[in-house]
Amino acid sequence: MTEKTAITPATHTAPPARFSHGVRKGNILQVAGQVGFLPAVEGRAPVPAGPTLREQTLQTLANVEAVLKEGGASWDDVMMMRVYLTDTAHFAEMNEIYDAYFADLTVPPAARTTVYVGLPAGLLIEIDAMAVLG
Amino acid sequence: MTEKTAITPATHTAPPARFSHGVRKGNILQVAGQVGFLPAVEGRAPVPAGPTLREQTLQTLANVEAVLKEGGASWDDVMMMRVYLTDTAHFAEMNEIYDAYFADLTVPPAARTTVYVGLPAGLLIEIDAMAVLG
Amino acid sequence: MTEKTAITPATHTAPPARFSHGVRKGNILQVAGQVGFLPAVEGRAPVPAGPTLREQTLQTLANVEAVLKEGGASWDDVMMMRVYLTDTAHFAEMNEIYDAYFADLTVPPAARTTVYVGLPAGLLIEIDAMAVLG
Repeated sequence: MTEKTAITPATHTAPPARFSHGVRKGNILQVAGQVGFLPAVEGRAPVPAGPTLREQTLQTLANVEAVLKEGGASWDDVMMMRVYLTDTAHFAEMNEIYDAYFADLTVPPAARTTVYVGLPAGLLIEIDAMAVLG
Repeated sequence: MTEKTAITPATHTAPPARFSHGVRKGNILQVAGQVGFLPAVEGRAPVPAGPTLREQTLQTLANVEAVLKEGGASWDDVMMMRVYLTDTAHFAEMNEIYDAYFADLTVPPAARTTVYVGLPAGLLIEIDAMAVLG
Repeated sequence: MTEKTAITPATHTAPPARFSHGVRKGNILQVAGQVGFLPAVEGRAPVPAGPTLREQTLQTLANVEAVLKEGGASWDDVMMMRVYLTDTAHFAEMNEIYDAYFADLTVPPAARTTVYVGLPAGLLIEIDAMAVLG
């Protein structure tokens, strides 16, 4: 029996419902949908890193990475990224930020799907990730 | 060679196309997107449990659970839930229902991503799930 | 240590950002979101197979299949398909095309989730897939 463990980085606000920011079981690690919230401050509601796509994308990637690290993984282990944007006009800029962020990756980058959905007011991007370790 | 098996709960209508309600191969079980349809009645088109978010969310969760059980899994094994809503105004109520539904879970809850999409007329929620067994 | 390898069919245009059309690690193969672009032509921007749902669906499925094959897998190994459409009115026609495409499948078909999202102008469908080999 392999144990399923919750991954909760210290930087993260409590999830707004009964789900985990990440779970790991055996060699599979799933990161829940992350948005551009700044590191949690006790007693304060979650606050986005800023109103711009750049600020939110970088913070969202940092939040995904925090879950990966807390779960013993790194970007090298990520198989799939799901990127949810709210506006097709954001695709080119998001890709620029994404490419710069992953410029130093020395293994093949993850597969990715990008689609355009609704998100809560003020949020421009959400990303989740699935990693296979080992 | 590990066999891929289809999972078809007796309560489910036939899928509207050539896909399986669930598939299992080795220790991975994938549940297809479930909506709030009531248990199938021979010769009747699928009918949602009701027009409200509460009715549809509870029925959708019951439908996901039916696939998990038929595949030899339980909520304890679920790594990821994808929740598709049609209206950001439904987030808080869905979370309340979700939290109550999973109140008795004794293992870490699954990761989750919630985004807002279009669904066929009359449907307010769709959920799929990925489980790792063993 | 299992290696993560990128899967890049010769028919594919370079991804528009730092992601892989497919990745494989151990027995898991993830296909990135594919759209209905024709096989790449050096020096030409990606061109959809045509304006219709039929043309784009068949080309998208061919593009998913190209990644599967290049990664040593086939439709038989696919556990999950995610189908993104832009219009609920396309569901019935997409299912017809989907069913005909998979008519000869001799193993249980993959699970599937279909939701309605925004896609870049001119694109009507996007599909990604996750396979478990062996």
